[in-house]
Amino acid sequence: MVGAKLKVAIAGLGRMGARHAAHFYGLTPRAELVAASSPEQKELDWAQTTLPGVRTYLDYDEMLKEEIKNGLQAVIVSSATVVHAEQAIKAIKLGLHVLCEKPLSTNVEISQSVCTAYRESQKKNPNQKVICGFSRRFDASYRDAFEKMQAGLIGTPSVFKSQTCDKLDPSGFFVEYARFSGGIFVDCSIHDIDLALWFFGEDSKVKSVSAVGITAVEPDLRKYNDRDNAVAVIEFYGGKIAQLYCSRMMAAGQEDTSEIIGTKGKMSINYSPMSNLVNISEATGIRREIPPHYYGRFREAFITEANEFTACCLDSTEPPMKLEGAVNAVRIGQALQESLITGKRIEFTENGDRVSEEPRARL
Amino acid sequence: MVGAKLKVAIAGLGRMGARHAAHFYGLTPRAELVAASSPEQKELDWAQTTLPGVRTYLDYDEMLKEEIKNGLQAVIVSSATVVHAEQAIKAIKLGLHVLCEKPLSTNVEISQSVCTAYRESQKKNPNQKVICGFSRRFDASYRDAFEKMQAGLIGTPSVFKSQTCDKLDPSGFFVEYARFSGGIFVDCSIHDIDLALWFFGEDSKVKSVSAVGITAVEPDLRKYNDRDNAVAVIEFYGGKIAQLYCSRMMAAGQEDTSEIIGTKGKMSINYSPMSNLVNISEATGIRREIPPHYYGRFREAFITEANEFTACCLDSTEPPMKLEGAVNAVRIGQALQESLITGKRIEFTENGDRVSEEPRARL
Amino acid sequence: MVGAKLKVAIAGLGRMGARHAAHFYGLTPRAELVAASSPEQKELDWAQTTLPGVRTYLDYDEMLKEEIKNGLQAVIVSSATVVHAEQAIKAIKLGLHVLCEKPLSTNVEISQSVCTAYRESQKKNPNQKVICGFSRRFDASYRDAFEKMQAGLIGTPSVFKSQTCDKLDPSGFFVEYARFSGGIFVDCSIHDIDLALWFFGEDSKVKSVSAVGITAVEPDLRKYNDRDNAVAVIEFYGGKIAQLYCSRMMAAGQEDTSEIIGTKGKMSINYSPMSNLVNISEATGIRREIPPHYYGRFREAFITEANEFTACCLDSTEPPMKLEGAVNAVRIGQALQESLITGKRIEFTENGDRVSEEPRARL
Amino acid sequence: MVGAKLKVAIAGLGRMGARHAAHFYGLTPRAELVAASSPEQKELDWAQTTLPGVRTYLDYDEMLKEEIKNGLQAVIVSSATVVHAEQAIKAIKLGLHVLCEKPLSTNVEISQSVCTAYRESQKKNPNQKVICGFSRRFDASYRDAFEKMQAGLIGTPSVFKSQTCDKLDPSGFFVEYARFSGGIFVDCSIHDIDLALWFFGEDSKVKSVSAVGITAVEPDLRKYNDRDNAVAVIEFYGGKIAQLYCSRMMAAGQEDTSEIIGTKGKMSINYSPMSNLVNISEATGIRREIPPHYYGRFREAFITEANEFTACCLDSTEPPMKLEGAVNAVRIGQALQESLITGKRIEFTENGDRVSEEPRARL
Repeated sequence: MVGAKLKVAIAGLGRMGARHAAHFYGLTPRAELVAASSPEQKELDWAQTTLPGVRTYLDYDEMLKEEIKNGLQAVIVSSATVVHAEQAIKAIKLGLHVLCEKPLSTNVEISQSVCTAYRESQKKNPNQKVICGFSRRFDASYRDAFEKMQAGLIGTPSVFKSQTCDKLDPSGFFVEYARFSGGIFVDCSIHDIDLALWFFGEDSKVKSVSAVGITAVEPDLRKYNDRDNAVAVIEFYGGKIAQLYCSRMMAAGQEDTSEIIGTKGKMSINYSPMSNLVNISEATGIRREIPPHYYGRFREAFITEANEFTACCLDSTEPPMKLEGAVNAVRIGQALQESLITGKRIEFTENGDRVSEEPRARL
Repeated sequence: MVGAKLKVAIAGLGRMGARHAAHFYGLTPRAELVAASSPEQKELDWAQTTLPGVRTYLDYDEMLKEEIKNGLQAVIVSSATVVHAEQAIKAIKLGLHVLCEKPLSTNVEISQSVCTAYRESQKKNPNQKVICGFSRRFDASYRDAFEKMQAGLIGTPSVFKSQTCDKLDPSGFFVEYARFSGGIFVDCSIHDIDLALWFFGEDSKVKSVSAVGITAVEPDLRKYNDRDNAVAVIEFYGGKIAQLYCSRMMAAGQEDTSEIIGTKGKMSINYSPMSNLVNISEATGIRREIPPHYYGRFREAFITEANEFTACCLDSTEPPMKLEGAVNAVRIGQALQESLITGKRIEFTENGDRVSEEPRARL
Repeated sequence: MVGAKLKVAIAGLGRMGARHAAHFYGLTPRAELVAASSPEQKELDWAQTTLPGVRTYLDYDEMLKEEIKNGLQAVIVSSATVVHAEQAIKAIKLGLHVLCEKPLSTNVEISQSVCTAYRESQKKNPNQKVICGFSRRFDASYRDAFEKMQAGLIGTPSVFKSQTCDKLDPSGFFVEYARFSGGIFVDCSIHDIDLALWFFGEDSKVKSVSAVGITAVEPDLRKYNDRDNAVAVIEFYGGKIAQLYCSRMMAAGQEDTSEIIGTKGKMSINYSPMSNLVNISEATGIRREIPPHYYGRFREAFITEANEFTACCLDSTEPPMKLEGAVNAVRIGQALQESLITGKRIEFTENGDRVSEEPRARL
Repeated sequence: MVGAKLKVAIAGLGRMGARHAAHFYGLTPRAELVAASSPEQKELDWAQTTLPGVRTYLDYDEMLKEEIKNGLQAVIVSSATVVHAEQAIKAIKLGLHVLCEKPLSTNVEISQSVCTAYRESQKKNPNQKVICGFSRRFDASYRDAFEKMQAGLIGTPSVFKSQTCDKLDPSGFFVEYARFSGGIFVDCSIHDIDLALWFFGEDSKVKSVSAVGITAVEPDLRKYNDRDNAVAVIEFYGGKIAQLYCSRMMAAGQEDTSEIIGTKGKMSINYSPMSNLVNISEATGIRREIPPHYYGRFREAFITEANEFTACCLDSTEPPMKLEGAVNAVRIGQALQESLITGKRIEFTENGDRVSEEPRARL
């Protein structure tokens, strides 16, 4: 751990951007947060107060232009999803390391363009690192389960059950959010899809996807082709299945759980959600509170992400995941979203091509 | 609780038959087990030793013929699934009360014939009771959850997640068993299907079913069109979804769990399976054991079932479930089994008719 | 399981007496409840309605006199604690088997007199069985823990932590109850003391006892020299310690827990109390309900007790515990109660004699 | 959060010292670790490699002398317990802020001398902060419980049960460690004592203490008047009781638990210990791992401690606890240790004076 710190800039200081900024500013010893950009002046004001010494910019391009002169090495893209890809590509083309919040884009082709830009740039900058921030990959519990699985504890992993379930928010927030979120499978289940690809192996090939959903609390979601509860099945070649559930309707808080079932055993993650280690006994029984939002569950993972991203940039080591996986996750999420709306199972060949349905119809 | 006891005979003294016999013999105060039949002499020998006073028969028909003279009132059908329907119908036609183990048959039409026989017989015997033994309906935890749901605790129930998962049995038992079991959805998930119909309402109408499965440990199951792990989705009209998982591959024991998610809250049943209340701390961590088989989990429910069946016969009260539901559960299970093999989603009209796929093909 | 049933009479049909009666009447296949006595006519009315065929008596002596003619074999003493010993001794002297509710008496000498009467009678009736009903000895979880300990799973058992904690009852019931209960250590902790003697071995020798208590919710308990919360330490010769807690102030319900700590591991019993397997997710968190009273926790144990007592009487096998242990438990409980009030530690020699404090004072 | 960082030096780079150093170096944004001292050159080597920029010293006095010139503001004392007090006092006399690891000393008088030095120095340096690091005060779970108690959730807190239990270490480490540790109550239970004082109120007055212990796995501990398992009771004036357990014999790992029982409810902390959120299902049951050592349980608390100590120094706010409490905790721990060895209960007047036993003896 010798030598200079990684000079980092952040794009976006919204809810998650501000957290990333704080992590890189004070909880990532080998990084130095040098600059931040946001189109919102009040977010920059917050940064000036909270992160003294960090230079602030209303314009992302301006930040890149100025900071590159000061030796900027890496950019954290944590802006609105709609500009993720564009901002990431600009930084990539400058040879900068990039940690881009998920998803790269809600669109597969645009996501792919980030990846293409990276692989192109890497030819000139072989040590350049670009990753998409799937925070669960950095979570201690998921990692422990993954390592135990790798060590053979559960035999051959065969079924992966996973859910991303948000706390009920009666404010209508989720309806407006659906306008740009890409839909519940691209927004929520993208994490579960990424986990499935991780646990089953990056080169897993999807055989079919199918999904069904309802609007139990937010019928207005239908105008954006979205649902508030949905279930999905992803079939992989080689005899593996992922079973997903996503919801915007959890009463108690964030309930993200996963289970990996193998031929010799299984592991579950977070089947007893909790905010902390306190149990409360009162007249109605014994109660524990649970985190209201994903950050309450995954704060430590985000901090680990910041530190490990920093380390792989500084030390030229392999990042913990490949960027192609992030494109693949969007591809699967988008297919699930389509199945959710059309009511049809979508099938793929082992080459990843979509199986046309016409031939079957002609029989 | 005054008056004579219900005179009960049992057909079948196999694993579950012997348990039912013991429950009616010694743990059902208002019932008197008077006779038992089995084609296996050694099972009758067991009964003569263990259940003194119970008359034994190698032939079911003979038992009915003789015992009806002695005032037989009810028959418990717990023989091989393949003779459930035939034996039940014979007893029904004699005006006897019948508790038939699940499933009535692995075949929908045969299941329906039991129901038809009952409704026909009931015209002459209005107090006759015939139920199919879905033991979970008698389980204290499921009942508590159901009552809390009825009382409005979770708002409108919308998503039902449920699984029936057997302990891994490397002996090959499950392969031979698959020859007659009707398949994993008819054998295992039938319970989850029944629970979905209970929690969502007996008159719930299926909109679609789809299933996917693998053979992770028992490839030979394929010769009987069966799988050792499978997932399914049942979509109901009115915006309700059931998500199922069934497995023959649990390392630790029986893991049957359910979760009912409503618009205001949710309840889970058995998300921390356990044999008893003991936790063991040892060098590898803290451990609890879990029941190896369904009987370890549901023994109390079976005893409650015996007592409540007896009570509804003696008191002419409504049984806790309708026989039509048992036919409906087989219908859904059989459709899932078909989807599992064909890889196609099966859709239904609100009238319960199957949506033909040809029209779509002609487009 | 061949042959005639054990003819059983019950003395006392109060809260627990009625439960014992129901267990022997309908849930103990090898027993026949033939008679019941109670000084309360309404309790006898209840029995006539609920337990048809059982003969009822207002007078215990009358019951013994009449029923002995009808072949009575065993008596369950479940009357008020104050008459336990007297009724038990009368039955013992008639050569009857006796299951006496705990405690034999709140007084050591009286408890001992039951034991003496039994050992005297046994000279003439070598197969006579007399046990004191410590229900936890029949609980599946405690038994599992005991067997695992016996099998060496935790090495040498060294520290036993145990508590008996009742649900808060703001009605003032516990104050009136304290008039005759013998105090919280004799009433509640007697179970934990018995468990300590079981887990550490029946021949464990007490070295010292000490106790401290408070009246957090019921100051009026002080007029009966009782407390509503108390802690105790029992030191045994041979390097073993029991640490106890008892309370009348649990908000959520009955919380009886135990932990046995050995040199190689430990086991805890009921550290996550629950009424059933349902978890409820609602806006305030995840909640489970717990049994309001000891019967909700130990119902199955009481039924097992009835069946095993019956079996050991009919089969002339050893009962699962010795009557001397019940005297010993009262002796320890009474000493703790004294320590609670005097604030002094009480010490014993290895012979069980109390160490006088005078010599020390003379120094 | 504007302005200069707190310049911090650390004394001691052993197991916990190295962790404190890392926390102040990289995880405490408002602090700057400028120097470290250790009598072990290899520990300084580690610091030079791991904490680039930190100046290292073999001699504590030398460090103070040099660094005071560079503007040193605070010292973290994390050296061997035997020099805690001396080093703390030297820094205090220089007007520096001090965070001293627990205990100040294993001796009450020496502990008091640190406190006296602080209060003396504070007359000249009113903003000087000196705290003793009771890490559990910074733990999120304990804090949540404390806040809920303060808000009235459990009524009047009355009974506090708490334990500090280390993982079994068969290497003999604990025997050598006992030579200087002050004994198990001063070393382990000091945390539980501090928690009792926190939950019951800093001004709680001890009425009596008593303790009993055994050597179940390490008989050699007796040569240092220590035990490997011990239980204690602390009685407070005003009707409050603390019941403690400490052990060096946990098979699975660190099991530190607490429970605060009030007149309206109770809260437990860490009654289901776990390393993370993974449950493992395998042939022997369902298992979770637990942290092997206290740092695995309390890492986050230590980081919070570093940040809050820094903040109260920089912002001149009240530290979260008073130094007098640390002296009080040692006083109680030492009394318990005495009771453990003498076998006598020790009583105190409301003024904190020890009740002499002679008068009683003379009666």
